[in-house]
Amino acid sequence: MLFHVRMDVNIPLDMPEEVAAQLKQREKAYSQELQRSGAWRHIWRIAGEYANYSIFDVESNSALHEILTGLPLFPYMKILVTPLCRHASSVREDDT
Amino acid sequence: MLFHVRMDVNIPLDMPEEVAAQLKQREKAYSQELQRSGAWRHIWRIAGEYANYSIFDVESNSALHEILTGLPLFPYMKILVTPLCRHASSVREDDT
Amino acid sequence: MLFHVRMDVNIPLDMPEEVAAQLKQREKAYSQELQRSGAWRHIWRIAGEYANYSIFDVESNSALHEILTGLPLFPYMKILVTPLCRHASSVREDDT
Amino acid sequence: MLFHVRMDVNIPLDMPEEVAAQLKQREKAYSQELQRSGAWRHIWRIAGEYANYSIFDVESNSALHEILTGLPLFPYMKILVTPLCRHASSVREDDT
Amino acid sequence: MLFHVRMDVNIPLDMPEEVAAQLKQREKAYSQELQRSGAWRHIWRIAGEYANYSIFDVESNSALHEILTGLPLFPYMKILVTPLCRHASSVREDDT
Amino acid sequence: MLFHVRMDVNIPLDMPEEVAAQLKQREKAYSQELQRSGAWRHIWRIAGEYANYSIFDVESNSALHEILTGLPLFPYMKILVTPLCRHASSVREDDT
Amino acid sequence: MLFHVRMDVNIPLDMPEEVAAQLKQREKAYSQELQRSGAWRHIWRIAGEYANYSIFDVESNSALHEILTGLPLFPYMKILVTPLCRHASSVREDDT
Amino acid sequence: MLFHVRMDVNIPLDMPEEVAAQLKQREKAYSQELQRSGAWRHIWRIAGEYANYSIFDVESNSALHEILTGLPLFPYMKILVTPLCRHASSVREDDT
Amino acid sequence: MLFHVRMDVNIPLDMPEEVAAQLKQREKAYSQELQRSGAWRHIWRIAGEYANYSIFDVESNSALHEILTGLPLFPYMKILVTPLCRHASSVREDDT
Amino acid sequence: MLFHVRMDVNIPLDMPEEVAAQLKQREKAYSQELQRSGAWRHIWRIAGEYANYSIFDVESNSALHEILTGLPLFPYMKILVTPLCRHASSVREDDT
Repeated sequence: MLFHVRMDVNIPLDMPEEVAAQLKQREKAYSQELQRSGAWRHIWRIAGEYANYSIFDVESNSALHEILTGLPLFPYMKILVTPLCRHASSVREDDT
Repeated sequence: MLFHVRMDVNIPLDMPEEVAAQLKQREKAYSQELQRSGAWRHIWRIAGEYANYSIFDVESNSALHEILTGLPLFPYMKILVTPLCRHASSVREDDT
Repeated sequence: MLFHVRMDVNIPLDMPEEVAAQLKQREKAYSQELQRSGAWRHIWRIAGEYANYSIFDVESNSALHEILTGLPLFPYMKILVTPLCRHASSVREDDT
Repeated sequence: MLFHVRMDVNIPLDMPEEVAAQLKQREKAYSQELQRSGAWRHIWRIAGEYANYSIFDVESNSALHEILTGLPLFPYMKILVTPLCRHASSVREDDT
Repeated sequence: MLFHVRMDVNIPLDMPEEVAAQLKQREKAYSQELQRSGAWRHIWRIAGEYANYSIFDVESNSALHEILTGLPLFPYMKILVTPLCRHASSVREDDT
Repeated sequence: MLFHVRMDVNIPLDMPEEVAAQLKQREKAYSQELQRSGAWRHIWRIAGEYANYSIFDVESNSALHEILTGLPLFPYMKILVTPLCRHASSVREDDT
Repeated sequence: MLFHVRMDVNIPLDMPEEVAAQLKQREKAYSQELQRSGAWRHIWRIAGEYANYSIFDVESNSALHEILTGLPLFPYMKILVTPLCRHASSVREDDT
Repeated sequence: MLFHVRMDVNIPLDMPEEVAAQLKQREKAYSQELQRSGAWRHIWRIAGEYANYSIFDVESNSALHEILTGLPLFPYMKILVTPLCRHASSVREDDT
Repeated sequence: MLFHVRMDVNIPLDMPEEVAAQLKQREKAYSQELQRSGAWRHIWRIAGEYANYSIFDVESNSALHEILTGLPLFPYMKILVTPLCRHASSVREDDT
Repeated sequence: MLFHVRMDVNIPLDMPEEVAAQLKQREKAYSQELQRSGAWRHIWRIAGEYANYSIFDVESNSALHEILTGLPLFPYMKILVTPLCRHASSVREDDT
């Protein structure tokens, strides 16, 4: 089941660079593991912003919630989830 | 080059059903041809709304504009375009 | 899987009363059948507005989309869907 | 009498973890007691957000206000209340 | 129990003057009867707008909903209800 | 002359409790004196929020401004003023 | 007593030109009479929009409301009123 | 050439009173000098808010920008500029 | 003097194609004449929308207003004007 | 390929003046280098605001993203990107 997610990141300006770097490293590892497992289908950077549009493929709303609240950057994010479904015009098998 | 597009459709309530059906048929054909050509990378229905999120892969802003204004339903749509770029965390080759 | 849905109804002022009455009758029947089947878990009127908050319990985003677009009043509605999940503090078994 | 309440929580990033944990523990206990008493009819987590939709069943606006301002997390919340009433299409006895 | 209500009126520009005049006459009578009964506690015109702020004193959300949807101008109104309660600083006996 | 005022209070989370308590005490005294003088006609708490709707009866915009900026909590408030006038449907003598 | 007023005009596209011209003529005469009487202190066109910012000097909210609802274009306007008062820094005698 | 400017002031709550007082004193002197020179045509306080509507009469956008960014309170202000022009209905010679 | 202008066009869906085509032809001629004269410095289409961002170079707010209200499509446009001035970092001679 | 970018700058009030001055100096140098290379086509100050509208001419969304996130002031900016394309009415060769 697919979900469209927008994440906007706001890391506090006074966070020590080292702490921020480490946090981003953990975020990247966490994201890549989920991408490889297939749960995090796509991630794109929004040009000019510290934000992304992502597509998740999970079994339930709860599975999505656990993934999102587990993000190392979650405390610094504003997240908006939109449930998707297959479009009648789609010709791709993996748009479901 | 990837673009995120949201399309909201508002067909006038007094449009004859036949006209609307024909219009939607043309829209579907137009979309599927572009999907097969690779320009219209993804299309997902937003649950509960007559709207979609789509991903386009085109050579330029102008190429995108021509595709979007050529949509049979364009006169009845509200469209918002967001330019995307590869996310540093992405592991997929086709997220570019 | 639970979803929170807000529906705002805008029946055109020039729709003949008979047509509107019939439409609302069909809407009511459609809603009650889904309530009895368990898919439409709750429906509440928002005081002072021609709108409702509803809770749906369905298997997937697609199942929800089919139900909502099948509403006799769908062409006259603005709908917003929010995916829900169990709250860690809930003590009710059916809040899932 | 039913009320629809949306609560968005914003715990300051610099609150010591221990203090936050204790606060959330008290919040949970407070909520569960009210759920058991019947006043807090439902609580659902909004997927991907530190927020919930809740349904309260109380005798008056004042009773609701006392409950909400008594929440241990109240100083960190943005709350929006919408009064509900029975929907003419409802088939459930407890949607009132 | 008190409620704060904002009503914005939009009578269609093509409604025959006679019909509009009659409608407003019925609205006035309806309002005054409720004012005399005590349910419609206050009504004030917002300067420069075809809108009012009103205070209602009713037994329940449902009682308020019935009053508001019974307004002759209801189909032409946008209504927003806010539940009120006694303010701890109030010195008036009838601010409850 | 009547004015509708909405006040939203945001006391900083790090204000010492004692200071806050004293401030609220002064606010209450200030409000009650103005209520007794007739200038602050009504004050109602908005259910679930640290906010109020108030009605003021003053001689001029300036008189209102002096009262509002004199509020002990003014530095922590967001205030919105709407000028009111007598509604043609009002039956109350004191709705003016 | 001074008020800041923004007026946005939306004349229906299908109004016969003659009718519109006559309406605007009456609007102009009405405005100029009030300007000469001193009640309509200033009127400025907002560049690029069919809208104006105006300053009124009237005795009360009700006086303002009567003037505004008497505008020949009132049924086609969206109006927003903001009460003003003398600024402590003003050096002009007529900014009151 | 006239411009309509709205200024909203937000002085940080922790600024020492002395510093704030001095800043406001400088702001007042700066404003009055410009009022006397004719560049700052009008200034009015918005009732109940720490904000003003002002009218400037300057030779160019750049002249306005220099004036506004030179305000002692500029770092604490949110400013919105709207270009004005003479209204066809105006009877005042100085509304240009 | 430079101004940034956003124009959103909404031609009524029921306007005869011939009338619309003629209108657009006149709009194009009007725009190109002003571009050649130097008053309409730039015009860019916003990708995916029937809208443009333009830069005007005119002597005054009034000159801009006359140009904009003279647009053949003006009755079908929503226009927003923002006054610009030279940026201290600009290296271009014609960014003024 | 052209992009319209709005940048709003919010430098923290407590940043030491020296640090801010140095940051702005680096920002200016960075901007001017890109202007000279042709990638940053235009930059205009928005009158009265610490903000600018800019036009970029780059090869791709990614090229734009790299430029924008490389801005020395990027951590203090809110940025909004809009993709542009040539307008059918444009007579300028460099509006592409």
